[in-house]
Amino acid sequence: MSRADRYLKACKKESVDCTPVWIMRQAGRYLEEYRAVRAKHSFIEVCKTPELVVELTLQPVRRFEIDAAIIFADILLPLEKMGIDFEFTKGDGPRINNMVQTRADVEKIRAINPMEEMAYLMDAIRMARRELGGKVPLIGFSGAPFTLASYITEGGGSRNYVFTKSMMYREPDTWHLLMEKLTDMVIVYLNDQIKAGVQAVQVFDSWVGCLSQADYREFVLPHQKRLMASLDKSAPHVHFAFGASHLLTLIHEAGGDVIGVDWRTDIDAAWKALNYEPCIQGNLDPVALYGSREYIKRRVAEILDKVGNKNGHIFNLGHGILPTAPTDNVKYMIDIVHELSARK
Amino acid sequence: MSRADRYLKACKKESVDCTPVWIMRQAGRYLEEYRAVRAKHSFIEVCKTPELVVELTLQPVRRFEIDAAIIFADILLPLEKMGIDFEFTKGDGPRINNMVQTRADVEKIRAINPMEEMAYLMDAIRMARRELGGKVPLIGFSGAPFTLASYITEGGGSRNYVFTKSMMYREPDTWHLLMEKLTDMVIVYLNDQIKAGVQAVQVFDSWVGCLSQADYREFVLPHQKRLMASLDKSAPHVHFAFGASHLLTLIHEAGGDVIGVDWRTDIDAAWKALNYEPCIQGNLDPVALYGSREYIKRRVAEILDKVGNKNGHIFNLGHGILPTAPTDNVKYMIDIVHELSARK
Repeated sequence: MSRADRYLKACKKESVDCTPVWIMRQAGRYLEEYRAVRAKHSFIEVCKTPELVVELTLQPVRRFEIDAAIIFADILLPLEKMGIDFEFTKGDGPRINNMVQTRADVEKIRAINPMEEMAYLMDAIRMARRELGGKVPLIGFSGAPFTLASYITEGGGSRNYVFTKSMMYREPDTWHLLMEKLTDMVIVYLNDQIKAGVQAVQVFDSWVGCLSQADYREFVLPHQKRLMASLDKSAPHVHFAFGASHLLTLIHEAGGDVIGVDWRTDIDAAWKALNYEPCIQGNLDPVALYGSREYIKRRVAEILDKVGNKNGHIFNLGHGILPTAPTDNVKYMIDIVHELSARK
Repeated sequence: MSRADRYLKACKKESVDCTPVWIMRQAGRYLEEYRAVRAKHSFIEVCKTPELVVELTLQPVRRFEIDAAIIFADILLPLEKMGIDFEFTKGDGPRINNMVQTRADVEKIRAINPMEEMAYLMDAIRMARRELGGKVPLIGFSGAPFTLASYITEGGGSRNYVFTKSMMYREPDTWHLLMEKLTDMVIVYLNDQIKAGVQAVQVFDSWVGCLSQADYREFVLPHQKRLMASLDKSAPHVHFAFGASHLLTLIHEAGGDVIGVDWRTDIDAAWKALNYEPCIQGNLDPVALYGSREYIKRRVAEILDKVGNKNGHIFNLGHGILPTAPTDNVKYMIDIVHELSARK
């Protein structure tokens, strides 16, 4: 078996020669070859130039023995054609200039046709598949409706989600209309990515951990369930929610062939709580990569021991890799996952 | 029974006429009378002037039917005399000018004598008790060692805790020495507050939720356990960790007569998981206060229904009240807690 097969086999709970590993945000600033590209092109310019997207997508595959590539993109890209005006500011992350906070704002949001309106990404997916030549599979992704809703109601990242939750708590009908429109978009966006060639899709619900269980059930679950059920079944669906150990069973109820968990969830207790039904992805703390080799090895071994080489585990960090992560330790982690999990 | 008794009785699981309620950060910016004081005095000036501390401590007691006062202070104050140079910046929160990141930095940290070196706070506690005249009890508090350690290693608030965790993961001996010194400080600081007159103490571990269970067990638990066991037993001990539903049983193992939980923890499932041994405090989402009256009432009722009027529940928000929280809704929440929980 080789890097070509491990990830997709693990997503179907088939047996593998060792545990597959990839890294959220693996095409990112911690790589000097990424910084070299970005020194010449703005973030948005890179996103919209298929050749550059392919270059960034392939960089970590060349450098490390990772078992999957993920197409380089940003979760906010599809919002542009929906009528949301945003920009990527230096250091501060995304800023949305026309925040969505009223019924009228929500009504103005347009449906999109990603295959045509985001041809730059679909072209990049086709080119990346060709360039990869079957070496490793290609993952596509989208932000989840809640996470996208939080960005456009808050105008960017948030600490307390006051605008997002205020809409939920004061104007539930407006909230549900917003979620409906975003869910419609994510469905067609991911299905178009699958048509273009991605072999698995991951839904990132990065900020949904701010909700109580009751709020998730009332304001998110119906939409997320419809989303997960509407995705093309030819590619495995990965459902990742950050900081959401308290929402685990609800995330599973919403759906996903693979459930991603962060480092604050005990990975085997979580998997057991889900009756080992889905596959599980995770869950090393991204900051562990700043530790000593001894520390990294110990934590990797702990995770692998917990899941006990059961089929259906995909190793990953519990969140995106940080821009200052030491690449030597990244390589060490990837290699040690393969070594320690080699099936006898 | 009256406001004088409910909180302390609930901390001992004694029966009460209705569930006591207070609010983390209740002496804060959401009150216009607070903003009026702050318009004339800097934050640090207020902290160090007993008359002003007492005024801010009493403001919410005058305005609302809350069942406890909490002394106005900041968790960073004791660090000043330990040799940590910090300032409160407008909007950005605290900034530490001499970050603690090396063994030498840690060794330089001094022990303090709060009774003398923080006489301004001890005087304020004595004066506040006199002014309160038994109307409601007075709570004292401190940051937990981990949370204080994270501030001084990061130089302020943090998103990823790279410096804090790097010290843990690369120089565990240095980390443990830092935690030992901070634990020594918190013990004497809280015991001195009790001597001065506070009737309960709360330990805020605001940022410990960033740790995995394994890291908490290895790097925090021994210190937090020693801390909780060393506090004067004449005042109940409240142990609050934010964003830490995954650490619940470890928090309980560390100790506390009352365990505080945030809104992302199912309050009764949590209490049950702890065999109803400690009392429980929480857990409305602070952002619920921005909702409709109908929403607030529904969520308050849900929490009260979950705990079913069992003795030992103290109602609170799941985190500090936000600076823009509408005071009308704050009053509404407090009154509705009393009304809906009135014992028949």
